Amino acid sequence: MLQAPSPKALIPFVSVENMMRLVHHIGVEAFLEELAGVIEDDFRRWGAFDKTPRVASHSREGVIELMPTSDGEIYSFKYVNGHPKNMAHGLQTVTAFGLLAEVSTGYPVLLTEMTLLTALRTAATSAMAARHLARNGARTMALIGNGAQAEFQALAMKAVLGIEHVRLYDIDPAATEKTIRNLAGSGLSVTGCPSSQAAIEGAEIITTCTADKQFATILTDNMVGAGVHINAIGGDCPGKTELHRDILLRADTFVEYPPQTRIEGEIQQMAPDYPVTELWQVVTGLTPGRRDDRQITLFDSVGFAIEDFSALRYVRERLRGTDFFQEIDIIADPDDPRDLFGMLQRARA
Amino acid sequence: MLQAPSPKALIPFVSVENMMRLVHHIGVEAFLEELAGVIEDDFRRWGAFDKTPRVASHSREGVIELMPTSDGEIYSFKYVNGHPKNMAHGLQTVTAFGLLAEVSTGYPVLLTEMTLLTALRTAATSAMAARHLARNGARTMALIGNGAQAEFQALAMKAVLGIEHVRLYDIDPAATEKTIRNLAGSGLSVTGCPSSQAAIEGAEIITTCTADKQFATILTDNMVGAGVHINAIGGDCPGKTELHRDILLRADTFVEYPPQTRIEGEIQQMAPDYPVTELWQVVTGLTPGRRDDRQITLFDSVGFAIEDFSALRYVRERLRGTDFFQEIDIIADPDDPRDLFGMLQRARA
Repeated sequence: MLQAPSPKALIPFVSVENMMRLVHHIGVEAFLEELAGVIEDDFRRWGAFDKTPRVASHSREGVIELMPTSDGEIYSFKYVNGHPKNMAHGLQTVTAFGLLAEVSTGYPVLLTEMTLLTALRTAATSAMAARHLARNGARTMALIGNGAQAEFQALAMKAVLGIEHVRLYDIDPAATEKTIRNLAGSGLSVTGCPSSQAAIEGAEIITTCTADKQFATILTDNMVGAGVHINAIGGDCPGKTELHRDILLRADTFVEYPPQTRIEGEIQQMAPDYPVTELWQVVTGLTPGRRDDRQITLFDSVGFAIEDFSALRYVRERLRGTDFFQEIDIIADPDDPRDLFGMLQRARA
Repeated sequence: MLQAPSPKALIPFVSVENMMRLVHHIGVEAFLEELAGVIEDDFRRWGAFDKTPRVASHSREGVIELMPTSDGEIYSFKYVNGHPKNMAHGLQTVTAFGLLAEVSTGYPVLLTEMTLLTALRTAATSAMAARHLARNGARTMALIGNGAQAEFQALAMKAVLGIEHVRLYDIDPAATEKTIRNLAGSGLSVTGCPSSQAAIEGAEIITTCTADKQFATILTDNMVGAGVHINAIGGDCPGKTELHRDILLRADTFVEYPPQTRIEGEIQQMAPDYPVTELWQVVTGLTPGRRDDRQITLFDSVGFAIEDFSALRYVRERLRGTDFFQEIDIIADPDDPRDLFGMLQRARA
């Protein structure tokens, strides 16, 4: 028999199954609302974080990225892939997992699935941004692109902003049908539409979340009326955008971290000094968000490591007192730290 | 009850306990010898790999690093920390875990502890380098610094080169005693020595693996005789070196990946264009390794991502047909990839 691992060797691991249990334990909307609050708190202390563009490994089929950050006490990183062709083979376009570690010791303290958690944090970030950028009293949103992110976006906007009506469009009607089915019973009124143009009618918030890896034009300039807030999720890597550049020219653009967004976001279409506002400056009140009811605001969202940090620390807090995790022995921790080999040897006995 | 996760959602996880079982199943020396061969194979196809310096997050107490690489088919990364003060608190200076993923889909295929595996791959890399750089027929090695890496180094040199005698020195005699105890029964003749000077007497290979994060001088120039091979392991991050620069000036220096070694290795003491030879060029026969019996060779080892890649793919191969792993459900993989929310909803039922 092997000796039991020392307590320091064990870290909580949240499987997909346990993440789903945790989400239902809290409630999807409550989870999204609380998470939006945690993300906003971390945007308020933006200066405390190490910020570095993600480390990307590109291939013909997609990209694998590592997204690290730290607030000086806790370190986090996320592993995430983006493979648009995966869907055709029955696989997720985006899968992810993530980790928290103590900066002072380098010891991991949490490992968790982040495919679901990324969907939740992306939606929570969108809703947090929309709280600052959309018109007051917005009740209707359009959702162009009804894939894996769609329902999370709708519920986050409902939970955080009080959105009541969702208008859907996808080039594949089956995706829209799936979203309608999944949102039945959510309290939202949901309408499938025959075109993007139809979907955005009357919408104060337009969310684009399509997945093609190409320069696409999901929205053109003449479609976008005064006063809307555009939440652009799908343009999130080099060579992948969703909006015509003329829309950008009419809108005020808000971003997470300019050095990353200029490479990955909608603004990759624009000059390197194209003016943008950093969202954390709006959140802290340094810069105004929406100025008037005619302004078109654009959140050019690509997803940033600090949002994952927030999501991980939220999960870590909410795990306390639950059993929604397994302990896995991932750290070799011999009694005498210099005696790694002795630990190995004793395991043979 | 939840639905069972789909097979694609499950990946093998090798805990510390299972890694120890795997190592004993294969045998420590056979593991080191086979692994040295796999690392050498990957050095032979050096050009096939993405190479990037590791992504480091430095703090007052240490560093947390991510080390990614890819050969175009398989992607790997390692999480590893280096916290010299950990030992004083009963923690490992270095802990690590790692992952393999398919480049074509981005899906992880293996997650494993790498604290033990890093110790094994570091020793296997040292032995592989020494096979090309040490004098033929070397039988005696000195080991300065008798911490967590010591026994692995001794056994790798025995397994790969046929080293018979090991001479130990550490500023803490308890560390030397621990190493003597652990190597009893290994077939090596082991001698504890009262000083570095005494330890290196008659040694054809000198391995330095001390852990202080500072510019230290474990070896000075007058101590090093003609013909030795120096395997410098401990100088592996900015501000941490072990050798006096005069030794470097008398030696021919071999490195893993110059852009990283110039920042982290012994040669951080030298000018940015200080001449070095890349080990892969020796392994492939492009450049000679040791030229004569008087030459002093120095392997300025800092550890490179490709060695971890090799170790991970070796473990993956050797796991086949064993039960030295658990399956963990870390990837959310709904039947319809666009229906992530539906999967979450069905889990509530």
